[in-house]
Amino acid sequence: MECLHCKSSNQDKDFVFETEHWIAFLAPEQDYLGRFQIEVKGHKGSLSELSAEEWTDFGVLVKKYEAVIKKTFGAEMFNWTCLMNNAYQEEHPNPHVHWHVRPRYNKPIQFAGQEFTDPDFGKHYDRERRTVASDELFQKIREEIKKNL
Amino acid sequence: MECLHCKSSNQDKDFVFETEHWIAFLAPEQDYLGRFQIEVKGHKGSLSELSAEEWTDFGVLVKKYEAVIKKTFGAEMFNWTCLMNNAYQEEHPNPHVHWHVRPRYNKPIQFAGQEFTDPDFGKHYDRERRTVASDELFQKIREEIKKNL
Repeated sequence: MECLHCKSSNQDKDFVFETEHWIAFLAPEQDYLGRFQIEVKGHKGSLSELSAEEWTDFGVLVKKYEAVIKKTFGAEMFNWTCLMNNAYQEEHPNPHVHWHVRPRYNKPIQFAGQEFTDPDFGKHYDRERRTVASDELFQKIREEIKKNL
Repeated sequence: MECLHCKSSNQDKDFVFETEHWIAFLAPEQDYLGRFQIEVKGHKGSLSELSAEEWTDFGVLVKKYEAVIKKTFGAEMFNWTCLMNNAYQEEHPNPHVHWHVRPRYNKPIQFAGQEFTDPDFGKHYDRERRTVASDELFQKIREEIKKNL
């Protein structure tokens, strides 16, 4: 099965920044303002396959990501997950290491004329909160983050 | 607020193994057979605070953990999360970096006279599956894993 992650590039409209081994995209769902998907550049099927260099560089990415989202929107903390369940719905799974990260907020945030709230702050993220942002809102969020990089 | 994680030690009854910077405990809930909690030894409040050495060593731990759980119970893949929400329910949050890891299984597993199933394999983990294992089962699981380290 073809790996869609391997086709991701820094030319994509959701690209925000990259490090040596990782590439950071704004997620389509922005209920958790600044939610990202982070992909490793090489095709690695599990966390066990990452090299020492990829781990060290992941630390660089985490620092950069958390700092810019705190600066841009005032996130309080972050929920990181590496699940990769969907790949295993295929007959021949071909997973590609990627992370989902949801910024969490302890107060309402105003941005682009909207209010973003996190009613479950301090608790597990709510998987039902996955509205896809409009193109206009998505690009405003992306540009605001890029300004602060 | 006192940090309970900082008091964890390799003398604890849920301790399984450690690496230079991380310590790996069997989680009380074993619905996902081989579920662990992994804690960084130093007191670090977020992933942004981890050093390059701690990240590299985390890669060592991930490899060791995934290998032993595959070998012991035949896990197919793993869900890793670093959330730390609960700490933020306190007035003065004092989070300590730790990971939750749930092995996922694409077939029923027989162990210690019980059948362990993963009906949601290929999908997000089910947070309702959090039965605390009996002391006897818990220690059997722990010993079986330790045999394979």
